[in-house]
Amino acid sequence: MTESTKYLLSEDRLPKAWYNLNADLPVPAPPPLHPGTGQPIGPDDLAPIFPMAVIAQEVTAERWVDIPEPVREVYRLWRPSPLIRARRLEKALGTPAKIYFKYEGVSPAGSHKPNTSVAQAFYNKQEGVKRIATETGAGQWGSSMAFAGSLFGLEVEVFMVKVSYDQKPYRRALMETYGATCIASPSNLTHAGRAILEKDPNSNGSLGIAISEAVEIAASRDDTKYALGSVLNHVCLHQTIIGEEAMMQMEMADDSPDVVIACTGGGSNFAGLAFPYIRENLKGGKTRVIGVEPASCPTLTKGLYAYDFGDTGKLTPLVKMHTLGATFMPPGSHAGGLRYHGMSPMVSHVKELGLMEARAYHQTECFAAAVQFARAEGIVPAPESSHAVKGAIDEALRCKAEGKAETILFNLSGHGHFDMQAYTDYFAGKLKDNTYAEADLQAALAELPKVG
Amino acid sequence: MTESTKYLLSEDRLPKAWYNLNADLPVPAPPPLHPGTGQPIGPDDLAPIFPMAVIAQEVTAERWVDIPEPVREVYRLWRPSPLIRARRLEKALGTPAKIYFKYEGVSPAGSHKPNTSVAQAFYNKQEGVKRIATETGAGQWGSSMAFAGSLFGLEVEVFMVKVSYDQKPYRRALMETYGATCIASPSNLTHAGRAILEKDPNSNGSLGIAISEAVEIAASRDDTKYALGSVLNHVCLHQTIIGEEAMMQMEMADDSPDVVIACTGGGSNFAGLAFPYIRENLKGGKTRVIGVEPASCPTLTKGLYAYDFGDTGKLTPLVKMHTLGATFMPPGSHAGGLRYHGMSPMVSHVKELGLMEARAYHQTECFAAAVQFARAEGIVPAPESSHAVKGAIDEALRCKAEGKAETILFNLSGHGHFDMQAYTDYFAGKLKDNTYAEADLQAALAELPKVG
Repeated sequence: MTESTKYLLSEDRLPKAWYNLNADLPVPAPPPLHPGTGQPIGPDDLAPIFPMAVIAQEVTAERWVDIPEPVREVYRLWRPSPLIRARRLEKALGTPAKIYFKYEGVSPAGSHKPNTSVAQAFYNKQEGVKRIATETGAGQWGSSMAFAGSLFGLEVEVFMVKVSYDQKPYRRALMETYGATCIASPSNLTHAGRAILEKDPNSNGSLGIAISEAVEIAASRDDTKYALGSVLNHVCLHQTIIGEEAMMQMEMADDSPDVVIACTGGGSNFAGLAFPYIRENLKGGKTRVIGVEPASCPTLTKGLYAYDFGDTGKLTPLVKMHTLGATFMPPGSHAGGLRYHGMSPMVSHVKELGLMEARAYHQTECFAAAVQFARAEGIVPAPESSHAVKGAIDEALRCKAEGKAETILFNLSGHGHFDMQAYTDYFAGKLKDNTYAEADLQAALAELPKVG
Repeated sequence: MTESTKYLLSEDRLPKAWYNLNADLPVPAPPPLHPGTGQPIGPDDLAPIFPMAVIAQEVTAERWVDIPEPVREVYRLWRPSPLIRARRLEKALGTPAKIYFKYEGVSPAGSHKPNTSVAQAFYNKQEGVKRIATETGAGQWGSSMAFAGSLFGLEVEVFMVKVSYDQKPYRRALMETYGATCIASPSNLTHAGRAILEKDPNSNGSLGIAISEAVEIAASRDDTKYALGSVLNHVCLHQTIIGEEAMMQMEMADDSPDVVIACTGGGSNFAGLAFPYIRENLKGGKTRVIGVEPASCPTLTKGLYAYDFGDTGKLTPLVKMHTLGATFMPPGSHAGGLRYHGMSPMVSHVKELGLMEARAYHQTECFAAAVQFARAEGIVPAPESSHAVKGAIDEALRCKAEGKAETILFNLSGHGHFDMQAYTDYFAGKLKDNTYAEADLQAALAELPKVG
């Protein structure tokens, strides 16, 4: 009999609900606080920028949240996504371990991000919103939101960090193909943008500034709301469809993971795969859960667990998370999607509860792993996802050294077709393993707000 | 009950054989001729550049050719590919027609090309070949051959047309990620290349020159063979897995196409989807079969059906096909994969037998169709595939005008993630519908060899 390579679920097995880990944790995650009062924020504080359905999901205590049928209908364009057994990689490594990966790069935007952008577009449309304002760094989130907006008939305005706007015209072209408007940030459209431009007309921009611009636009227009692509509870919730599908597929494979691995930037693709497994661990399961982050921006491994702002401009509510400080400027790397000073409060809480492990890698070792993976399995990973690939290969090599036939499952959160410059730089020996100065980290941490 | 979006086949339904239309045609296709003698060529003439198994497939009269298990094993990385019902596009068009598309962009290289590159890599490896030399224009074929080579442990040398080598570094990076060597053509590595460079040191290169270089390398080295990505019978054969899968999937959908549409450059993705339907038509089926080509390179609609060379350098055997003349230089367009002076001899023969229709479109109308498709279905088509999209939309609008609920099936042969510059140019109004001068066409046709 032929051994299976892919495990595909038919459309009728597409999950009907997202999973909320908050319902099962022994201790609830600390609430977000109002930066002015230091008191927990309520739905009204968020109403200017998010639709009520999304706010309700942010704070829900329900274990399962139904996925609306119009969202499932869009999901079916690419979901259920495949679970693939990486037999060729196993062979190349000479490991007794079995390696599986869940492949989220099959989405139209090429990553896991549409799992939440589609849901957010639906809820906004349902509440009569006309326009979504959002930000994007390298463009993964912006193109996912543009895709979702086009399907639900929402205008999408994307504030794109200026240096990426100039250097990554193809991601911008993808957003425009979906009908979105792309604006280089800082821009003249907002107070926040104009304030930066007055000081520095040639500012390269930053994700923090772009967030401030998008939030300002959303808060100042009645017909416009804001959307965020990671970090928040509702985003992690929407991503759990990854893990729920993976569990069914591992069952099809008559197998079950000893180790689950995903990369962590804001935390959402990790949460998506891992939270369902953490639920099972809370009921007695023994799956190790590992988050892999860049050594240049090591939130979980070097950050403090403290209340901090989500943006550099310090406009957002305070959330308790692993943070390098809102003013910390991570050194450049090609894994732009992991270059964030903070971490999902839910993922941070899970880490504090001892329900996950974390480790950090430098980018060149991740690209080496990505190239080995591409030559064995044919798929070129996104630079972000290459961190999970490296984590999986290291675990497989540990199994080899220990003579253990463990089962490893990792999340290949996106393909690298829009990131080939990074591979070119890697082959040319131009990639640097940038590190930050310890003094800069300490300076940023010293600015943490004194609350909570 | 929910209506289905995707029709997925489980791995155990992956076809076990390719289909050879030659076995069922009422008249056999005219044989290739030796350019010196004017006599039909034999296997020995091709042995220096192709492995014997491939030569045997080129001339086989068998109806079905078994797909070797190691090839099926690699196919399973992405095959069976999905058949998707384009319900959102139907709604956007307001058509009573049902539109389905077979999506080949899910392959690791992003197009249908790996269906044959994997097979060719397997047969070469089996016969002890160490290295494949091939050419590529925009890079779709080169990256597909690089991918297949990496999986079977073959070195791959790709002669890439110099203008693309310089302008499309990301396709080149993809080939290098798979471990292939990419050489700007014309190069100093071959007589053919040096001859061109002596006349014009700044030559931009052409597909014809790159073919000559790759063939020369293959013919001059014992351990090296040549691989072609379209046109030839064995390539069309390997691509029929597309149509064989589509037929099973249309059955799952309890439907059957009235019209089947694919774009035609060398002809292989068209052959892949259409030939199985033509087989059924020969047994009494009534499916219309339409090939769509660029108006700037209108082989099937404006070319002569005559014996001609496959390359500009006039080194290949003579094949009877629809041709604009081997020295015809098609004007520039973003659908580089359709920019070829000739057409698959099999597809040409099918056209002469009246078993298919052909039509030509300009590129701007194809991009307009592609953008409409992307905004409805989320997938950004490759510029080549956009010709099939335009054909399908036109048929759907005809159905609307005639009030007919026909079923349309088209081949979405690849995604456009490496072609975003074309979309940028389209939105900027910079795309031109280039046409050729009639005098240039007539001059090229006047050079057709006097044989056959």
